[in-house]
Parts: sequence; structure tokens; C-alpha cells
Amino acid sequence: MQITERLARFLAEHRPEDLPERVRHEAKRSLVNFFATALGGCRNEAVEILVAALADCFGPPHATVIGRRERTDALTATFLNSVSANVLDFDDTHLRTVIHPTAPVAPGLFALAERRPISGAALLHAFVLGVEVECRVGNALSPGHYRRGWHITATCGVLGAASAAGKLLSLDAQRMAWALGTAATQSSGLVENLGTMSKSVGVGNSARNGLAAALYAERGMSGPARPLEGPRGLAAVMGEDEDLASVADGLGESWELMQNAYKPYPNGVVLHPVVDACLELRPQVGDVTRIERIMVKGHPLLRERADRPNVTTGTEAQVSLQHTVAVAFLYGAAGVKEYSDACVNDPAVLSLRSKVAAEDDASIPADAAVVSLRTTSGDLLSAHIAHARGSVARPLSDAELEAKLRELAGYGAPGVDAERLIEVVWALDKTNNVAEVMKLSAT
Amino acid sequence: MQITERLARFLAEHRPEDLPERVRHEAKRSLVNFFATALGGCRNEAVEILVAALADCFGPPHATVIGRRERTDALTATFLNSVSANVLDFDDTHLRTVIHPTAPVAPGLFALAERRPISGAALLHAFVLGVEVECRVGNALSPGHYRRGWHITATCGVLGAASAAGKLLSLDAQRMAWALGTAATQSSGLVENLGTMSKSVGVGNSARNGLAAALYAERGMSGPARPLEGPRGLAAVMGEDEDLASVADGLGESWELMQNAYKPYPNGVVLHPVVDACLELRPQVGDVTRIERIMVKGHPLLRERADRPNVTTGTEAQVSLQHTVAVAFLYGAAGVKEYSDACVNDPAVLSLRSKVAAEDDASIPADAAVVSLRTTSGDLLSAHIAHARGSVARPLSDAELEAKLRELAGYGAPGVDAERLIEVVWALDKTNNVAEVMKLSAT
Repeated sequence: MQITERLARFLAEHRPEDLPERVRHEAKRSLVNFFATALGGCRNEAVEILVAALADCFGPPHATVIGRRERTDALTATFLNSVSANVLDFDDTHLRTVIHPTAPVAPGLFALAERRPISGAALLHAFVLGVEVECRVGNALSPGHYRRGWHITATCGVLGAASAAGKLLSLDAQRMAWALGTAATQSSGLVENLGTMSKSVGVGNSARNGLAAALYAERGMSGPARPLEGPRGLAAVMGEDEDLASVADGLGESWELMQNAYKPYPNGVVLHPVVDACLELRPQVGDVTRIERIMVKGHPLLRERADRPNVTTGTEAQVSLQHTVAVAFLYGAAGVKEYSDACVNDPAVLSLRSKVAAEDDASIPADAAVVSLRTTSGDLLSAHIAHARGSVARPLSDAELEAKLRELAGYGAPGVDAERLIEVVWALDKTNNVAEVMKLSAT
Repeated sequence: MQITERLARFLAEHRPEDLPERVRHEAKRSLVNFFATALGGCRNEAVEILVAALADCFGPPHATVIGRRERTDALTATFLNSVSANVLDFDDTHLRTVIHPTAPVAPGLFALAERRPISGAALLHAFVLGVEVECRVGNALSPGHYRRGWHITATCGVLGAASAAGKLLSLDAQRMAWALGTAATQSSGLVENLGTMSKSVGVGNSARNGLAAALYAERGMSGPARPLEGPRGLAAVMGEDEDLASVADGLGESWELMQNAYKPYPNGVVLHPVVDACLELRPQVGDVTRIERIMVKGHPLLRERADRPNVTTGTEAQVSLQHTVAVAFLYGAAGVKEYSDACVNDPAVLSLRSKVAAEDDASIPADAAVVSLRTTSGDLLSAHIAHARGSVARPLSDAELEAKLRELAGYGAPGVDAERLIEVVWALDKTNNVAEVMKLSAT
């Protein structure tokens, strides 16, 4: 059997009862994190612009726009909710591929569940399967695909979104293959656009267009037999000599979702151990005016990605080591408020960040860091973090994910009853009323 | 100045009065052909499926769906009209790139004109500029881009659609560059999908997403400074070592639209001189049962693309030499009816196509062909076509384009007043009521 056919059969035939309980729980953790970041992002400028520009084309009010008052058609809501979930770069990460798995896959499922009778258990199952296809194709294309300049969350996300929505629509293997084909021909998204608002369009499209691919396939829209592995298919055209041969090996035996990680801070993942170290040192420092110099040592990736001493916007600051260290010491936090444009240009931050230096140490793993500090009185302080909070070795606890949702709801959508929302997401496998979850996420 | 910046400035600054009259006339010819093929395609199975699948998400009835009764929002109508225009592969061709220029670019302009006051002259101007950007980027990426497997109509079409819509929205150079950036990150479409219904989704998206990119930019959605030429921009990621350096040279001095060609027959362009030759021989043959053997000689591309003796569907038959020769002799036509599934399986066609053979002759140009025929009584007949109808050397006349619209309207949308529609398209540069044109194209 060919690759696409094997994936399509797996998707069509896998049963919810064959999903291990720990995978189902991880799916719920991913969704707590999804609502957290979507609520935090739902008033971001990019979302406001997209809502304003699309309002004239809004379809019937079938679906919830998370954290907001608007209701619109399933495809548009899927687009907007995916954008909100990803816009802060605070969503989940499949570290091997750097795919953010949930923002492309989950929104279409919730939009469908507001339009058709769908159980929470079926939604969780479809979500896991969608992430599986998305991340397996991502694994096969990595690292050449992203390195060439493909925004892998968007390019592989559309396949995950189509797979998951196709499962909820109970597509048979032939239609599932068609859905994958229509998804593949929509695969797009350039790394050049990261750091600008247009990044959000690529991610939002992956969710919207994946759902659309499944809806078209449901009605019989045909696609090629080998959209992924054919001579002019996705791997040949968008890959760099990688091949897909092993993509469908061991399906159902391992689960990519178990490799999902959740960020404790809305910044580049290389910065996470640095924040942890700063927060550990901070109580020992007391008054920050005592700080003379801060030295950060980390894996060479840290400086490569985040050595940015002179940033001027919140978006740039999310990948600035200097800004991040400064706010962690000044405010004891590196949350969404600390990455506002105003905070980036705060004179106290500018002053402290000028005292930050960094140095490579290839013996330090990427999820570790050492922060050392000299005070004006000559004291030397140091903190070593072996594994960052939120790394696979030290995952956020369920309670930490809940706290993240509470905090981000308070930031982006204070009208939402965060406690009740948390409760219904944890109970998702027991409900036949998924639409209620979405109602709770609106304001 | 950078490439994107130069294109954006040209788009923002070029004035309608600087468009030569012959270019304006060619724009109207392209649009007559556009309405012809959209009316012919509007009841195609792929369109029916898309309308059925999207109906649940239709926005307000602001915009016409060509040849049909439905009305929907501007983005959805743009998508559907682009699909209808391209689905039969009967639309226009920019031969150097094999881009079909109009299906991505025109639909968004007409949808905008049903929502905002826009003159016909402004629409024609924006259309020409959109095609210019679309085909110039296509030229720069050719031939490696298509050869790798990118469906160039879709991948470059989205840039043309964004450029044209951006012009109608009067975007300044900064916002135009943002629109190009948001278009670039949506660029997609795989050659693997050609010959299946999912091809249509790539083309329809190019039109829809280009319009969306312009609407987002109008509201201030930012994009990267160098989406086309940057290190992780469109040319680096989707090109094959081609570079964009000359893309913006001589803008406003030459016009790619003047290289546009219109098909007289809904089949592969290599087959056009073959049809011409068959139609020339047919009166001399009389009864087709007299035919013993038909020999076609042409450029090697002819057999490479179209030597398909055993096709079973209309879609495959569009690139079958054997089927095409058979119907041309049997019915004196090679139109949309002759590429139905029923016609492909007609016993008389099967019998005649088995008598067709083909042979390469590298001395024959791609737009030429020789068809020779031996009768059962031993007569030898032969016809040589130096340039096919519809080639750049022998373009379809205005009257032939009108006839094409009449025929295709009769096929796909008999309720439409084709004569009146032809009249208003030719008068487009003199109207302030573009919406009327669209009303005439509905049923």
C-alpha cells in the first residue's frame, strides 16, 4: 500500500476505544492550553484586523469566536480561533518538528461540534489522530523543510486539520485520501512572514482549509491517489530529499501527542530555562539597582535565536534574551504583559537589559541554562537550570496549565468564566454537549 | 530598492490613463473569454460539490455566482467564480509560463465592484496590473517552479489577485507590499492534483486568498519587507535557483497581457493544431467509415503530453490525442460536449480512435501539426497547419471570442442573455455600473 492510502485507512479505521487513557488525557491538556492561548490572543491586533476585514463576509452565526462576542460560520470561526490560539506564540510545541500542533487541528473540530451532534470523546479521538498525521509528516520532512523556509505549523497543520475533521465526519478511506489530497494542494506558509502579522494568516488558513478539505471530500470531491508521495506531491515538491517511507510505520502504537510541550512563558522556547534561572535568583537580589552585570550561558542556539539587545516591539522582544532577562528580574514575570510594546520601551527595562551579556557553552543542553550575576557590592550569585519548566523532561502540571488558562483569560477575555471552562474541558470525554464548551469560551 | 518594494510602488502609482488602448482592449478580450469559460464551467461537478459544501457557510448575498442563482459574500463568490472559469481547462494561457492569468485575478475585482462603487475603467486597469505581477513572477520562476511540481496558475495567481484587488482598494505602496506578503505566504497548489477535482481548490483559493490579502492589508495587517526576494521568501523557498532580479525591470513599458492566448477547444494546447487539421480534412473524407488509418505528426511535446489511446473519462480525454482526433472527424467539433464521459465511451469514438497513430517530428513547431489519412479505398489525404487557431501567431478574433461565449453560455447557463453580456463587457471601460455586468451573468 502507498503512504497516503495507509494513513487514510488508519484514520478511517482507528477506534476511540483503542486510544490509551494517557493519550486521551494529554489531548485534554493540549485543549486546556489551547483555550488558554486563544483567550489570551483573542484581542491581539492581528485578530482585530482579521475580524474587521472579514465581518462583511461572515456567514450564519453557527460557531463561536473564542473570547469574543461575534459568532460566524464554521470556516471563518475556525480561521479566527486558530489565529487567536497561535498569535502570541504561546501555544504548544512538538519539539522535534517545532510544529504548534493544536492551533491548526482543534478549531475545526469545535466548529463542527457546534453544527452537528458530536460527542466529546469523538472530538478528543479525532484531535489525537489529526495531530498524529500532522506531526508524522512533519517528522518525515524535518529538518530540511523548515530550514528551507516552510512554516511547518501551517504546511503540515492543514493535513492534521483535514485528518481530524475527516474523522469527525466519518469519512471512509477513499474520501479520507481525497481530503488529504485537497489539504496537500493548499499547504503553504513561509518562514519569511514570521514576526509580522501575516504569520497568522498562514496558521489560520491551515485550520480553515483543512476543515474545508474534509467537507469537500465528504461531498465527493476527488483528489490524486498519492498527494503526499507522488512525483509531484507534497514531499517531492515541498521536501528537501527527505522521504516519507516510514511515515505510516507503527501507526497506533506510538502517539506523537505524547511529545507535546506547553510553554510557561510566551517567548522563544530557548529562553525558558533562562527565565527559570532569573526567577530563582530574583529573591536573592532584592533591589534590581544592585545589579551590575548579568551573564547568561547556554547552548549555542540560545544566542543564535535570541541575542537581540536592541528590540523595540513586543513581537521582537519575544525572541530577545536581553529583554527577557530584564523583565524577569524587574517584574518577577515573563508573561504577555511583559511583551507589550509599552513594556519593551520602559526606561527601567532598557537600563537593565543593557547589563545583560551572553556566552555559548556547547556542553549545555538546549533546555538548560546558567545565569550568573554580579552586584555593585561585588557579590556573585548564580543559578543553574537543568531542564526548563515546560520541557518534555519537566512538563507543566495540570494545575500549571489551569493557572495559565486563568491568567490568559484574565488578560484577553476577562468576561469568561475560566473556572467553569477548565472544568468542562477536563470533562470533555464524558459530554455529549461540546457546543457548551464553546459557549463558555465566548464573552 | 528591493523587488517587492518596486512592484508595490508600481502598483500603487501607475495611472489608468497610462495604459495603452491596445492593452485595455486585450483586457476586455480576456474578460469575454473569462465569462465564456465561467459560464461553461458553472455546472461542472466540482462546482456543484463546492457550492453544496460551502452553502452552510455562505455570507451575505453581496456577490453574484456566475451562471447560477446563488448569491454569497465576496470571498466565497470569488472562490467559486475562479473555479468555474478554470475547471474546464478552457481558459486563457500565458504560454511562456502556462499560467491561466484571468481565473485568479478577475473574480475578486468583480466581487469588489458589487460591494463598492468602482468604475469599469478602474477594474480593467487593476486587472491588467494584477496579470502583470502574476506573469512577471511566473516568468522569473519558470521553468524550474512548474517542473518541480508547482501549479503555477495557483502559486502565482494569488500574487496577481492580491495586486489587482489592492489596486482597486487604492492601497499605498506600504500596504501593497503587505498584501503581496500575505499573498506569498498563502501561495500553494501541486501539479499532482491536476486531473482531479481538487485542482479547482488550488485555483479558487488563489483568487479568494489574494482578495483576502488585499482586504487585510487595507486594515493594516503587516507583512515582511521582502516576501518575494527575502532569504525565506517565495523565490528562495518555491523557486529552483531562479532569481527575481529582473522581475521589476521595465514595468509599464511592456505588458504581459499582450502575450495572453485564448483556446478555441477545451483540450491541451498541444492538440489545437491537430484539431484544426482534422476539421480541414473532414469535408474531404465524407463518411468516416471510409477511414482506414490516421497518422498525426507533431513536435515531440505532442506525444509526450497527449499520447493516451485508452482514456475513460472526459478529464483524461482532454489530453488524449486519439480521442480528440476521433471526435473531430466524427462530430466536426472538439468542444465541451465532446469531452463528456459519455462521449469518451461512445462505441463510434472507441472504434475510430483505435485507428489513430502519432509520430514525432522535431522540425515541426509546437503550434503546428500534420494530419495524414488513408481511406479503405487507398486514397491519401493530408493537412498541414502552420499555426493553430488561438496561438499567439493566429489569435482568436473578437468575433470568435464572442462565439465562444455564446456557445459556452448555451452549454452551462442557457438562461443567461449572452448577447447583452457580450455588449456590456466590450463597453466596460465606459461604465460606472460594473455590478450590472455581474447581474447579467447570473441565472
